[in-house]
Parts: sequence; C-alpha cells; structure tokens
Amino acid sequence: MGGRSKGDLVEREKLIEAMEGILGESGVIHEREQLRTYECDGLMNYRVIPDLVVLPESVEEVQRVVRVCYDEGIPFVARGSGTGLSGGALPVESGILIVLTRMRRIIEVDLENMRMVVEPGVINLHVSNEVASEGYYYAPDPASQSVSTIGGNLAENSGGVHCLKYGFTTNHVMAAEVVLADGTVVNVGGGKANDAPGYELLGTFVGSEGTLGIVTKVTLKLMKRPESVRTLLAAFGDLEEAGEAVSGIIAAGIVPAAIEMMDAQTVEAVERTVKPGFPQAEAILIVELDGPSAEVESQFRRVEEICRESKATEIRIAESDEQRALFWKGRKAAFAAMGSVANDYYVQDSVVPRTALGTVLKRIGELSEEHGLTVANVFHAGDGNLHPLVLYNNENEGEGERAEALAGEIVFACLEHGGSLTGEHGIGLDKKKYMPKMFTDDDMDTMQLLRCAFDPHHLCNPGKVFPTPRLCGERPGPWKMHPIQKAGLAEMF
Amino acid sequence: MGGRSKGDLVEREKLIEAMEGILGESGVIHEREQLRTYECDGLMNYRVIPDLVVLPESVEEVQRVVRVCYDEGIPFVARGSGTGLSGGALPVESGILIVLTRMRRIIEVDLENMRMVVEPGVINLHVSNEVASEGYYYAPDPASQSVSTIGGNLAENSGGVHCLKYGFTTNHVMAAEVVLADGTVVNVGGGKANDAPGYELLGTFVGSEGTLGIVTKVTLKLMKRPESVRTLLAAFGDLEEAGEAVSGIIAAGIVPAAIEMMDAQTVEAVERTVKPGFPQAEAILIVELDGPSAEVESQFRRVEEICRESKATEIRIAESDEQRALFWKGRKAAFAAMGSVANDYYVQDSVVPRTALGTVLKRIGELSEEHGLTVANVFHAGDGNLHPLVLYNNENEGEGERAEALAGEIVFACLEHGGSLTGEHGIGLDKKKYMPKMFTDDDMDTMQLLRCAFDPHHLCNPGKVFPTPRLCGERPGPWKMHPIQKAGLAEMF
Repeated sequence: MGGRSKGDLVEREKLIEAMEGILGESGVIHEREQLRTYECDGLMNYRVIPDLVVLPESVEEVQRVVRVCYDEGIPFVARGSGTGLSGGALPVESGILIVLTRMRRIIEVDLENMRMVVEPGVINLHVSNEVASEGYYYAPDPASQSVSTIGGNLAENSGGVHCLKYGFTTNHVMAAEVVLADGTVVNVGGGKANDAPGYELLGTFVGSEGTLGIVTKVTLKLMKRPESVRTLLAAFGDLEEAGEAVSGIIAAGIVPAAIEMMDAQTVEAVERTVKPGFPQAEAILIVELDGPSAEVESQFRRVEEICRESKATEIRIAESDEQRALFWKGRKAAFAAMGSVANDYYVQDSVVPRTALGTVLKRIGELSEEHGLTVANVFHAGDGNLHPLVLYNNENEGEGERAEALAGEIVFACLEHGGSLTGEHGIGLDKKKYMPKMFTDDDMDTMQLLRCAFDPHHLCNPGKVFPTPRLCGERPGPWKMHPIQKAGLAEMF
Repeated sequence: MGGRSKGDLVEREKLIEAMEGILGESGVIHEREQLRTYECDGLMNYRVIPDLVVLPESVEEVQRVVRVCYDEGIPFVARGSGTGLSGGALPVESGILIVLTRMRRIIEVDLENMRMVVEPGVINLHVSNEVASEGYYYAPDPASQSVSTIGGNLAENSGGVHCLKYGFTTNHVMAAEVVLADGTVVNVGGGKANDAPGYELLGTFVGSEGTLGIVTKVTLKLMKRPESVRTLLAAFGDLEEAGEAVSGIIAAGIVPAAIEMMDAQTVEAVERTVKPGFPQAEAILIVELDGPSAEVESQFRRVEEICRESKATEIRIAESDEQRALFWKGRKAAFAAMGSVANDYYVQDSVVPRTALGTVLKRIGELSEEHGLTVANVFHAGDGNLHPLVLYNNENEGEGERAEALAGEIVFACLEHGGSLTGEHGIGLDKKKYMPKMFTDDDMDTMQLLRCAFDPHHLCNPGKVFPTPRLCGERPGPWKMHPIQKAGLAEMF
C-alpha cells in the first residue's frame, strides 16, 4: 500500500522538508518519541506509530498536504482529539497523520437562522458554551463531548444520550467544506436554506469515518434550549422490569430526551469512582424529558406512574440542576469507571430493535456465564443502542482472546435479532471483520463504489470500515471485482 | 445516447418480444396511442413519447428489464404516478419507461417497531390509511399525496405542509431495496435498528431523482397520531405583516406542524374553485400545532397572540375536524385553482433562509411589475420554501418566454439571498440549467462521481439534474473531465 516508492520524495527527510515548507517547523512532528503520543485513539487495543504528524491551521494547508500525499501516493489519516472507540483514527504505517486540533475557530454565529459555522477542531461542548447565554445549544452530546471535536463527531456520526429525541450528528450538520483525496475543495449540503438539490453527499460524508475526505468547515444547526427539563432516576429489581418501563414509556407515545439504563455492575463501578449516590439495584433507568413546561409536567407524571407500574423499587426526581448534573455525571462516567472493577474491558456498540432488548439482554447474560467473563451493560435503552462491556484481565493467559470471542458472540446475537453492528462508535478497524455478517458482498461492493469514486487510490484512511477493500480502476467488469484481485488486496491491508 | 446500436436486439420488435418474455403481454405497452399517455409528468411543458412502457410486478421483473437495458445500452426512466413538477419522470426518446404502479403491495406492518415495508407503487395516503385505525400515520404529506407514490416521493425527497416540524421523506425512510443500473439488487439503509454502518447510501438515493437506480422496496417510519391538533387561519393586510407573524412564532421557540402562507391572488383563485370561505385578504396564514394537548393548548394561545400583535385583521380557529379539513382543502387546491385565473402558470420551488423571506417577497413583487406578469405566492413559510406561480397565457405571442425569464429571475433572487433551487419538487429537466448558479464546477463534478460509480453508461434517467453530464470511465485524470469531452457530451443531452 502506497509508501513512497514513486514520485520525487523518496526519502523521509524530503517529505519532512516539504511539509515544513507548507506548515512551518511547528506544524510538523517527526521525532519518534513525540510521534508515539499519536499511536492510537480511544480504542487502545491497536497501536501504530505514524511516519509523520502534521498540524494544519487552514483549509489551504490541509489542501496542500493532501496534494503532496496524492502526488506521492502517501496514505493519510485525519483525526481530532482521538477519542474514537473503534480505531477509526488509528494511523497507517508509512503514512501521515493529519491532526486538526489547531483548526478550532468559530467562524460565524447566526442565531437568527440558528446556525454556527465552525472549523473541525472545535470541541463539541464549546459550541453549546458559545451560545448558552443566549439560550441556544448544539444537541448531539456524546459522552466525550468535553474533549471530542466536531470533525471527529461528523466522521463517526456521533450520538449521545439525547439522540433518542434529537437524532445523531447527521441531523444537526447542515453543510460542510471537504478536501477530497486529490486535494479538491468542495462544498456539500445546503447551508442556511434547508435543502440542497443534486445528490445528498453531506449525509454520505457524515459517518464515513474519514475515508472519503477531510472536513475543514462545518455548518451546525443550533437549537433553542427547551423551556423545561425534568429528570428522574428509577431503580429496579431486575433488568427485565426496567425494560418493561422503557417499553411502557414509548408505547404511551412519549419521546423522552433520553432513557439510559445501567446494570448492577455498572452502578457499582460508578459508585466506587464518581460517587453519584445511586441506589443499589439490579437496574437503574435515567429518564429525561424536555420541552415546553406544560408538556413536560404532564408527561413526567405519566413516566413516574409507568416506572411504578413496572415495579420500580425507588424513584428519585432531580430537584435542582446540580442533582440532575449528578445523575448524568454518574451515567457519563460509566466507561471510565469500569477501570476500577476490571483491568481491561472490551466495549461493543450494537443496536437492536427496541422490541428485542429483553431477549438480547437475556442472551448476553447466558453468553457471559458460558464464557466465564463478566459483562456490564450500560446503554441508550430508548433506541436500543447497547454498550455491553466485557470485563477481563489481559495479564491472565488467553483472557484477552476469550473476551474478544465473547464480544463477537454478543454482536452476532444482536445481528440475529435484527440489529446493527454499531450505533455511534463506528466500524473503524475494530469491527470491520463483522461487516460480512451484516452485509452481502453486493451491499459492500456497492458502498465501495463510492470509495472508488472519491478515493480510487485508497489513500484516505485506508484499511478501515471494509474488511475487503474493493480494487478501483482497472476492474474486469464494470461492477464486480475479480476474486483474485479481491484476495490479493485483502492481504495488503 | 444509447439507442440500440449494439447487442442483439437491434429491432424494436425483438425488444418488445424480450420484454413480453419477461412481463407477459399485459406488462408491455408499445402502441403509439397508448404510449402517448406517458409522454409527460406533472410538468407539462415537456413531452417525449417513450419507445416502450413496461409495467413490472416484482423486483425480479424490474431486475430482468434493467439487465436487458444494461446489456443493450438502452436508457430507462422509472416512474410512479407521474405527478412530479420538474420533469424528472419525463421519458427518454429511444428509451424504456418503467412504470411501477403495479408494485403496490404492503409487505409488512410492524406497529411495535413503528415500521411499514411497502412496494414503490403504493400511494402515499394509503400508507397512513392502512394504520389510521390504530392511531398511526406516515408524516410526509405532499399536496399530491392522494395520487403520488412512495417510490416517486423517495426519488424527489418530497416534503409537504408538515415537513417544517417532521422533516422530508429522507427523515422517514429507514431502508430500501434498490435495483442498480446493471441489475444488481442491493439493500441500503438500516431497518428496524436505527442506524447502519458503512456509507450512508440511503440518504443519497433519496432525492437522487431516479438517476442512481430503481427502488423496489421501502421501509417507512410510522408515527403516532398526535394527541391534539389545533389549526388557525389568520388574515393580514399585507404580506409583510404575515411574515412578521411567522418570525414571531419561530422566535418564540414554537415549532408548528405547519405554517402556510397564501397571497391575495392565491386566495382569490382558491375561492373561485373549491370555495373554502377564506376571508378576502392580502395574505393568509394557516398555522397548525400538534402534540400533547397540554403543550398544544398553551402554545396555540401564544400563536394567536402573536398573530394579533402582527396586526391580523381576522383570526379563525378550526372548531371541528371538518373545518380544519376545509382550511387544508383550500391550501392544497392552490396550484390547481390557478387554472381558473390564468391559462398557464410556471411554478418555482425555491427555498430561502426564513430571515430573507420578507426581502425576497418584495423583490418578487418588483420583478412581477417589471415583467408585466402576475406572480401568485403560496408557500411553506415556516421553512422558507416558496412556490411563486408565474401566471401567463401561452396563446399570447412571446408570453411563455417572458414567464420563463421572470421565473428564472425569481430563482436568481432567491439564490442571491442564500437560497436553494428547489425545496421539494426536484431539479429534473426543468431546473438543471440553474444548477451552475448554485454550484461550482467542482461541486457538480464531485456529485457526478457518484453517478459515474453507480451508472457509468448514463442509462438510468439520463439527461436529468445535471446540465453537463460527466463522462465516466476513460477520463484523462482521475478527477477532471477534459473540456472537449465535456462540451461533446453536453450536446448529446
């Protein structure tokens, strides 16, 4: 794959020189010890030290870097803060890592049209902070929101606890400026008017995990802070009863801003670390409603009733912003807290139809027993997005492999029940092996027609998402890749 | 373009025979008089008699028809009821028109997951009717909903009066089965689980105006009927005051299900025809709120206040379902009613940022005076989607051309104010000449990378959307089309 076998810049020194010519010395990292900082993203199972790290500060700089890569056949990976959980921002050997954290300007705030234009390195939470005093906010709120960037959110189509009601990043991005794999700068999406004609490329770029180009400017949709927010926490004697409460709320036609569920293992871990004072329980639900006060009040009473009908053992209502923040602190710290109960954990991100939640949770329990490893469950219950955490200790011989096998079986169980591989963390490197369980060869080949169209040389975040890259260009027929080429390429990645 | 110059089926008779072999005699229309029925869609300015019309009844039949087209290089156009307003379903000469109205089975109703799986020929309104008794409905409601098909809605990303709150078709389609230009059948989108990994191709197919493949099965999202619906009609002394009311409602953080505006010309035409008993006024607003009763009641009072503050001369509140239906009958009949005040009309579908509505409406008034032609305005005010109707009489020498010129200037005025060419009617044949006013060559070339990937031989609804088709395949560089080829191809279409 790539490397620097052709073109002029055959030596690393020349490449460094070229990059410094574009970005200045402070924009290029080439010393091995410093490069090590960038060897992985939030998924620490894989590590690759990039050949070079560059830190552009403008679209022109990104474009010039990408043009060099294109001309020389050098693969590149773009990243923001590197909080992704699927290895999507893992560097490529003999490749350049393009870190966009210096592009963090807020370019325009247009409250009248409820839009903000930002650079990709802007931190998610900074968007909301910028307009909070005027009563606006940006809805997608991944647990990483105080660290993760808008560019990364866009690449992964990030969700968050409130995406049940407000949707994923794709519903809140209105337009983007993108540098394609050959350095062409294009604009996709609409802008201030809602819709744009032609092909809807924006939606394709959102969630493409950095494989179609590099986003250099993003127009976000802002929302008005809801008049009222009400949050309750309900404890249950088992997961099934908590599941019944979730079904009951949805069946009542209520669309909460969030419904989150945590099991006993998770609650215990959270209590040990951030100490939110959660009750001991087999399952805890956090339900949040927002909207006009009149609506929220009447629906909130109904939610409380439904929780009682589903045999909640305790219900706590947040009586202040502080208490509400504490509920959420407990929930959002769940992943990090797992470090206190297990040396290592493996997190999945499968989605199942909400109606299959009960069955799938039961199956996860059985699988956990069969494999002799604990699985903690913390998830977006409202939209069936599970985050089962397989706990293990890598120092015990073979436990890492067993954990991975168990995690795999959990994925298969979700797929069997009409589910999907990932809700919000992306496929990246970590889950690409599962793609053929969900898609036919034709489905994946069809997706990769896009890759071939936008990045025929596979320079842009290669080796991610698809288990078998499709050879572009001289393919024997107009549609199918020859099996021999397919096999050959698979080895290359 | 295409034709039947290569391959075996050099004669029309052989093609008819092949199609009858696939579809039976009743599935193929080849007599000229019968073919004439299909010569245009809802935009009657253009007429082309197709070479053949075929009426497949299953995905297998669609696939076999498309394979013949692919092997023989015959262009094809898919259509449903043909109600489109931009010529998107206009047949191609020496091409096949694939009419999908016989594929109108409802395949699955899954109320628990709020999904319905249908064939593309199912009429929009039939979806809601199917589940109405159980309190569900399908949200997108184009004015054509009693006639237009789900397949056509998907191709055009249809909106409707309620898309302000509920979004366009793209927000309500969860998955689709598609026959690509070479006959491959693929599945795009998720399904019962909300999200699917890999590239988001579903969103690209929605709104691609039939140029990327033929949809043969669609999974729709159903919604629960809101607990309460309240509708008011407000009359104003001028358009600007009505516009202020719209801004005031939005600024109050209220998201109505619909805000529609009609000007004096439209109201008059509607009164002459369907007689909804609207007051005489320079502008009429219809505002509808829906949701939980508590919310609707409190917000409805606020809307009424805002209308009064903006100097509404009269406010009527629908006190029954019948009265509400009458308000909407008046609004939805607006286009058809124009036939009573003008021989001909030319309708635009531009979108402007809501904040530019006042300025653009004023400019439309000036342009109307300059050109000496009446322009009636009836539009989705909440999301800035204008439908200016240029009234003219084609029997008057040169008036058709003047109307088209005026319509063009209206489009330019919208674009100047940050608008878009089309909100919901599509580009089709009619508006492709305006595309370069909105997009750079690079933007359009980038979109057409997709076309090249999915339909490199330009067989699938050729000549629509893009003014200059991009030559696929042997392009000189990996990205740019050679100017000479560009020019050459432009002539072919």
